Amino acid sequence: MVRLNAQTREEYTKQIIQAIDMQNLEQFRELFFDLHPTDQVDVFNSLTKKQRDMVYQYIDANEFSEIFEELEIEKQTQYIEELPETYTTDVLNHMPDDDLVDFLGLLPEETKDFYLSKMDKEEAQEVIQLLEYEEQTAGAIMTTEFVAISSTETVQNVLEMLRKEAPAAETIYYLYVVNKQEKLVGVVSLRELIAAPLNEKIDNMMLTRIKYVETSSDQEDVARIMKKYDFLALPVVAAEKLVGIITIDDIMDVVEEETEEDFAEIVGGKGTFDENISSFSAARKRAPWIVLLLFFGMVKGGIIGVFEDTLEQYIMLAAFIPLIMDSAGNTGTQALAVVVRSFAVEGKQRTSIRKIMKREFGIGVVLGLICAVALLIIVPLMFPEGGLILAGIVGVSLILTLCVATVVGAMVPFLAEKLKLDPAVASGPFITTINDVLGLVIYFAIATRLLDYLI
Amino acid sequence: MVRLNAQTREEYTKQIIQAIDMQNLEQFRELFFDLHPTDQVDVFNSLTKKQRDMVYQYIDANEFSEIFEELEIEKQTQYIEELPETYTTDVLNHMPDDDLVDFLGLLPEETKDFYLSKMDKEEAQEVIQLLEYEEQTAGAIMTTEFVAISSTETVQNVLEMLRKEAPAAETIYYLYVVNKQEKLVGVVSLRELIAAPLNEKIDNMMLTRIKYVETSSDQEDVARIMKKYDFLALPVVAAEKLVGIITIDDIMDVVEEETEEDFAEIVGGKGTFDENISSFSAARKRAPWIVLLLFFGMVKGGIIGVFEDTLEQYIMLAAFIPLIMDSAGNTGTQALAVVVRSFAVEGKQRTSIRKIMKREFGIGVVLGLICAVALLIIVPLMFPEGGLILAGIVGVSLILTLCVATVVGAMVPFLAEKLKLDPAVASGPFITTINDVLGLVIYFAIATRLLDYLI
Repeated sequence: MVRLNAQTREEYTKQIIQAIDMQNLEQFRELFFDLHPTDQVDVFNSLTKKQRDMVYQYIDANEFSEIFEELEIEKQTQYIEELPETYTTDVLNHMPDDDLVDFLGLLPEETKDFYLSKMDKEEAQEVIQLLEYEEQTAGAIMTTEFVAISSTETVQNVLEMLRKEAPAAETIYYLYVVNKQEKLVGVVSLRELIAAPLNEKIDNMMLTRIKYVETSSDQEDVARIMKKYDFLALPVVAAEKLVGIITIDDIMDVVEEETEEDFAEIVGGKGTFDENISSFSAARKRAPWIVLLLFFGMVKGGIIGVFEDTLEQYIMLAAFIPLIMDSAGNTGTQALAVVVRSFAVEGKQRTSIRKIMKREFGIGVVLGLICAVALLIIVPLMFPEGGLILAGIVGVSLILTLCVATVVGAMVPFLAEKLKLDPAVASGPFITTINDVLGLVIYFAIATRLLDYLI
Repeated sequence: MVRLNAQTREEYTKQIIQAIDMQNLEQFRELFFDLHPTDQVDVFNSLTKKQRDMVYQYIDANEFSEIFEELEIEKQTQYIEELPETYTTDVLNHMPDDDLVDFLGLLPEETKDFYLSKMDKEEAQEVIQLLEYEEQTAGAIMTTEFVAISSTETVQNVLEMLRKEAPAAETIYYLYVVNKQEKLVGVVSLRELIAAPLNEKIDNMMLTRIKYVETSSDQEDVARIMKKYDFLALPVVAAEKLVGIITIDDIMDVVEEETEEDFAEIVGGKGTFDENISSFSAARKRAPWIVLLLFFGMVKGGIIGVFEDTLEQYIMLAAFIPLIMDSAGNTGTQALAVVVRSFAVEGKQRTSIRKIMKREFGIGVVLGLICAVALLIIVPLMFPEGGLILAGIVGVSLILTLCVATVVGAMVPFLAEKLKLDPAVASGPFITTINDVLGLVIYFAIATRLLDYLI
């Protein structure tokens, strides 16, 4: 058993690189091909251009294509340019079509057509079709490399057929049963097939209650169904015809991608998670955000400016600005997070807006009351003169602010969706700004009213 | 093909409930068992206590156990109390041991022992062992229901053995090869087995470079390995002996759970995502947080109080408090999010602290400069008198604040880990508070120095 911990892994990589540098073809192949393909990719990524050029000579196009399909898309785009002329066709033909679609989809039109022209006609045709599906739909992430069988076959026949088709298919663990019109009529798992008598007809053992998605289904819905039913693959149909499957490994990526998208929107930083870019590029990506924040900051400053007279008369009102803003911002973001996650987890069968709003408003009231009580105890200790009034002002403002903030946080994503607005309007900084402004207005308006009692 | 969209699903559920209410045993069974087990669970959960009692009569213990194992743990705890006496043993024996461990692990010691005493001795023994592993480790989430084979078998032998074992095993898609000492020596996928000649020896076809985890491995590491290598299952070893496997469906849950944990920590709301609790319970869960925030707000207020004289002399300094706080809070949280996500995604092989800090500091500098330029243009337009000085004060404060905030945001999670502190100290509200306080101190300190030029 080859045990690779971080240290031996580094040692092992060094040996492989040494073999390349010494031009020791045999040793390189022996060491390299003893690795899992995913680890081969790690090693390959750590090579210099010159070393990679050696590798292209040491392994053939078919062997390389196993590595190429596992590479990240950025690396694929980089390396394909440096491949030997003879490699390209083999590499492209060999790639699973869902990965190929991801890769080609990012290229400029001309480059894409150039690579498509190098491929087998039939393969290319399939890929061109897949490229037409809208991004983030089932059609765009599915593969056409599935195993379809007929319901009239016997278990024995199917097992023999699988012997041949197993290497090319994306998965053989679910076998989809289609009729003569290519309509999906049933499903059999390989596990059931293995356990069944050899002369059993597929017809008699297949499940006919099939979960499936349409090519236009959102990838989030695909992920939800696969997670709910613990499927390893899910069939995709168009006009009832089986046109592809989506496998669990692709869905794992979708789940992570979608969660990070939600995440980035709430902390308000697109491009926050891309770690391979320089400070300068990252800053440039975040700059529009921070300038927007600056503008929002000015708006809040403007509100404070409006109440300059009030503030001038009782300067210590300024001390509670952070408290009002923090409470408004934090509870609003929490409510927002609850709603955004419930969209992601529950999909179309989600909890009703009314139920969530009621619950969040209730939370606002209870939290507000708790805070008000705490303030009534602490503030008079801090400000012996007029402290009770001050605590009253801050306390009442806080109750109102929390109620408003939870409702705004919960409502905006629903509204944005209803109005078909960019979901980014529901992102953290926007909601925080709305809530801060409302909170400050509530606070200073109440303070202005009660000022006479304070001084 | 039974096509269940939301509407027909509701209709279908109604029919099942009607069958129960009419005491139509036959119709109930026909409708109910045509559903996927996961959908049976949905229907079952929508029944009243009285209806459930009918169901217990209509289906036997073995059939019910299929439903029971799919239930959420809260529901399991509720329903098991109302099961007919004869059901309990069958239901518990039938449950996959990893699910049983999740269920029993949450019960009080006495109740747990009571249920264990009802089970088959052998099964109970296995479960007791599993219960001893620490939470969130590979040992705690693994199942012992795997298929182990010997390397001396032929493909034909293994296929015949699988015919019998397929129904009981958690997965048969990977077959783990062990030697006489039960040590893990190889792995064969069912796909390779299907494609191989029947008389081939396992020895000749098994992969010997095996990825595996120890029982004590963190579940996050398990998820990372399975995602990286696209595995459907991963073996768990203790002292080189194969003791269990972890399947992809359990890992999907782990991925979501871990991401939500990270998420909840950054928005600062444990219990935020549990939707089935009332406003009051949710508020009670969040109350310690909000009271802590209140306290933090007082600290920030205290800082402003310290600079009361400065503020009194030039009241409009208050207008930029939100801007300083927002910028500090937002950039700090972004840096924090980057680091927390990189912990989750990269695991032990993570980017070095120095590299991340350097990058984040760089981002702080660039963003600060951009903001300062924007301020130098806007502020003099807003405040014709002394606007340039004011812009200078705010601008310089902002550059310093952003640099400090990014570094604090990136550093605290590293520090917390190094010092083995509760990772909650690295959560959003704490970091925002530190950054707000630092930002306010920087701002007012600079303003106090330059006050003479302002008025």
